[in-house]
Amino acid sequence: METLAADLPERLGHTETTASKARLRLWLRLLKAQKQIEGQVREFLRQSHDTTLPRFDVLAALYRTRDGMMMGALSGELKVSNGNVTGIVDRLVADDLVERVPVEGDRRAMKVRLTPEGRTTFETQAEAHEALIDRLLGGLGVDEADALSTALLGIAETAEQSIETHSATSRTQE
Amino acid sequence: METLAADLPERLGHTETTASKARLRLWLRLLKAQKQIEGQVREFLRQSHDTTLPRFDVLAALYRTRDGMMMGALSGELKVSNGNVTGIVDRLVADDLVERVPVEGDRRAMKVRLTPEGRTTFETQAEAHEALIDRLLGGLGVDEADALSTALLGIAETAEQSIETHSATSRTQE
Repeated sequence: METLAADLPERLGHTETTASKARLRLWLRLLKAQKQIEGQVREFLRQSHDTTLPRFDVLAALYRTRDGMMMGALSGELKVSNGNVTGIVDRLVADDLVERVPVEGDRRAMKVRLTPEGRTTFETQAEAHEALIDRLLGGLGVDEADALSTALLGIAETAEQSIETHSATSRTQE
Repeated sequence: METLAADLPERLGHTETTASKARLRLWLRLLKAQKQIEGQVREFLRQSHDTTLPRFDVLAALYRTRDGMMMGALSGELKVSNGNVTGIVDRLVADDLVERVPVEGDRRAMKVRLTPEGRTTFETQAEAHEALIDRLLGGLGVDEADALSTALLGIAETAEQSIETHSATSRTQE
């Protein structure tokens, strides 16, 4: 989509066109950087750790919650369907990296959590992942990286608010 | 993955830890901003244009090549499998937005290209998409958006080069 901004006919017909094009270009660049890095991460996980990004993401989520998570909470956090997460968790259980444990006070409910081997495995993968990102973004000094982080957090938050405001307005007008 | 950087045990044991964490945080923020905006784009395309992001991306790619594209080139550009693109194109053909045309000089080959209705439909969707991005990134002035665009292009290019250099080094050592 990189050339979309340039190719699109100039039909907006208002003075905001330049700003609008600059913001569209920013989004296309953000998408390009994200795809580039994520592609490298996937390839690295596959080649060097014989694993996938969804598996890595599941281990990361469980690593942050020592007591384990309900499946619904896990798929909610990863924003993928319960069915997909179940398949990934099944394979992680078969690999002894994750275990299902009963929930105290609810005899029918089960949580999933990392096994000790799962914790060690994830720590190894997470260190290697951090080293990879460090290499991929190595052109940036700490100050520059921090400034960009702040700007991107602002973008994420503004985007979230814009939609909330827009939705609220739409509802008011209905 | 937002809290990964903070939660990971400090085992790197070298003075580059701060820079490494800053770069990891930058990647996680970039990912967060991208997911946030892409989620809004998907929802907007579904609700307001009864379409999907993969369909929009196929129309965008074909919009840029008036003479049409071979299926292989199309799936290469979109970086998705030929099978997936075929399904999407089949539905776009059924909707009269895309047509299959013979390739001059090769009786067995077919290209796909937008119909006139496909061009009009995409222009409408692309304008609305640009207006959505403009709203989502509305907190940024032109100068700020341009500066971020430049930084992100640098990131994408550095990431690409890092890996190429790394692969070349690995091959030399084999």
